[in-house]
Amino acid sequence: MTTDELFAAVAVTGWRRAIGFTERLLSSLSDEGLFLEVAPHRNRVYYIVGHLTATHDRLIDMLELGQRLHPEFDELFLDNPDRTFPDELSPTQLRDAFNTVNEKVTHGVEAMSPLDWLKRHSAVSEEEFDTDPKRNRLAVLQSRIGHVMYHNAQIRLLATS
Amino acid sequence: MTTDELFAAVAVTGWRRAIGFTERLLSSLSDEGLFLEVAPHRNRVYYIVGHLTATHDRLIDMLELGQRLHPEFDELFLDNPDRTFPDELSPTQLRDAFNTVNEKVTHGVEAMSPLDWLKRHSAVSEEEFDTDPKRNRLAVLQSRIGHVMYHNAQIRLLATS
Repeated sequence: MTTDELFAAVAVTGWRRAIGFTERLLSSLSDEGLFLEVAPHRNRVYYIVGHLTATHDRLIDMLELGQRLHPEFDELFLDNPDRTFPDELSPTQLRDAFNTVNEKVTHGVEAMSPLDWLKRHSAVSEEEFDTDPKRNRLAVLQSRIGHVMYHNAQIRLLATS
Repeated sequence: MTTDELFAAVAVTGWRRAIGFTERLLSSLSDEGLFLEVAPHRNRVYYIVGHLTATHDRLIDMLELGQRLHPEFDELFLDNPDRTFPDELSPTQLRDAFNTVNEKVTHGVEAMSPLDWLKRHSAVSEEEFDTDPKRNRLAVLQSRIGHVMYHNAQIRLLATS
């Protein structure tokens, strides 16, 4: 492997591990468990899974991996807090959306060439990118790995109790 | 910047951001707050901060950044669960240890050359590394960024309440 390939492979492995962690947590939770708050007055797992799905669906756009699958999740799980709307999705629909979006991101990032990671992502302007080339696709993926690990700790409050 | 320098710079920026997030959470918590459980029957912030300090102190060894500062933290915060021992450290001592260890790691990783990230870390054998060169120093840092983000979510349960 070239050094560029190694740098990229470590990032993709980190993504797969973080998603694998979430999948194991969620598979240990019953469908009823999805509707519980992770702690008193905190978000329900239902909302957190929707929020992660929406966030990862936006990655498809930001990393230019194709068409987003669930833009309708933004209003439900990014732009508004938990319980703003009635729960429209069944547990199965929510779990399926989460898995399908993650699979599309994973296949997409596995197919990226190493130097693609250093390109501008679609949410940063060319001017901003010229000023700071660290605002690249790799930085976005790294940020999302931290984001999902953060929410994993919240899900874990229920998944291990 | 070369491509190797960019890959490395994104990783180091990710570390600094995650630690900055923890620092902001902890500065919003009183010393009394450190002794609260993040949720009923969960670890206290005191233990989580000690656990992060010990984990990051071990990074100094793993990334070969010099001498560890607090090997005595392993027994208190890694090898045994919360409340195994009486609380020997004052809030100020604990906060200082956390900050000092993080500063040493940050200075160390900022001084690493890009290709150092692709070297074997001290907790993997040469044979294991030959089989999987992705088990390098970059993978360790990336894993620790996810780890601290995970625990940040636990601290946040108190820091925002």
